[in-house]
Amino acid sequence: MSIRSSSVSLGNFTLHPQLAADCLPVGDFALCRVLLMNNRNFPWLVLVPKREGLRELFDLSSEDYAQTMTEIRRIAETFRVLTNADKMNIAALGNIVPQLHIHVIARYENDDAWPNPVWNSGVAASAYSAEESRSFITKIRAALGL
Amino acid sequence: MSIRSSSVSLGNFTLHPQLAADCLPVGDFALCRVLLMNNRNFPWLVLVPKREGLRELFDLSSEDYAQTMTEIRRIAETFRVLTNADKMNIAALGNIVPQLHIHVIARYENDDAWPNPVWNSGVAASAYSAEESRSFITKIRAALGL
Repeated sequence: MSIRSSSVSLGNFTLHPQLAADCLPVGDFALCRVLLMNNRNFPWLVLVPKREGLRELFDLSSEDYAQTMTEIRRIAETFRVLTNADKMNIAALGNIVPQLHIHVIARYENDDAWPNPVWNSGVAASAYSAEESRSFITKIRAALGL
Repeated sequence: MSIRSSSVSLGNFTLHPQLAADCLPVGDFALCRVLLMNNRNFPWLVLVPKREGLRELFDLSSEDYAQTMTEIRRIAETFRVLTNADKMNIAALGNIVPQLHIHVIARYENDDAWPNPVWNSGVAASAYSAEESRSFITKIRAALGL
């Protein structure tokens, strides 16, 4: 399935304001918007399928589900190489923000939350500086071909 | 792709001893073993693709990845209906147990960890009684067609 083609027909889509507040925009794959969580403690992407009214992964149509999974695989594998992570954490939780979104997080055996998950870890979020985020997003976009 | 067919050729596979200790066996899909986390606080399945030496989702071959995603979708959707959950949490973390495994967890707005993830939540695990687990696993197997 294509990653960047325009073969996916998209209707209206509005990013949830909490995701817009917490994340920085990276770019768009065919179906998913790619965001960078604005937290320099963990290299952390968030994928949001650009469909209205989805909460669960299985709310996606079969075709969109397959496309989302293809994009997750591509992004997780590429982000692991870019970040040289020890482990990738991939999760669809959505207990707080109801709009379907998928976390793709690069973890290191010496990061502040290891080996626990990053959520509810007691590690306070720390925003990127403007220069840090610009530089990192440029690298991510290049790696992902965005 | 088939869920229960024998079209997936499987080699040797050994369940990681930590997963064997923490979980109860439910059954086998074409590619994934299905386990029930032995923790009555949260209805919680664990899927383990029956391949040796995998740690990341993208370590799966393209064909196995698609099959695993098909099985995740089927199991998550069915388990949500069975448990009447408010939200499903689906995650591949693996920071502690290195064998690739996927969590499929039924969450309720009044469960002990809500809205936090179940890991590192401070809620101690509580094992099912023999009768509870037998009854629940019978229902899960029937729902999943196992």
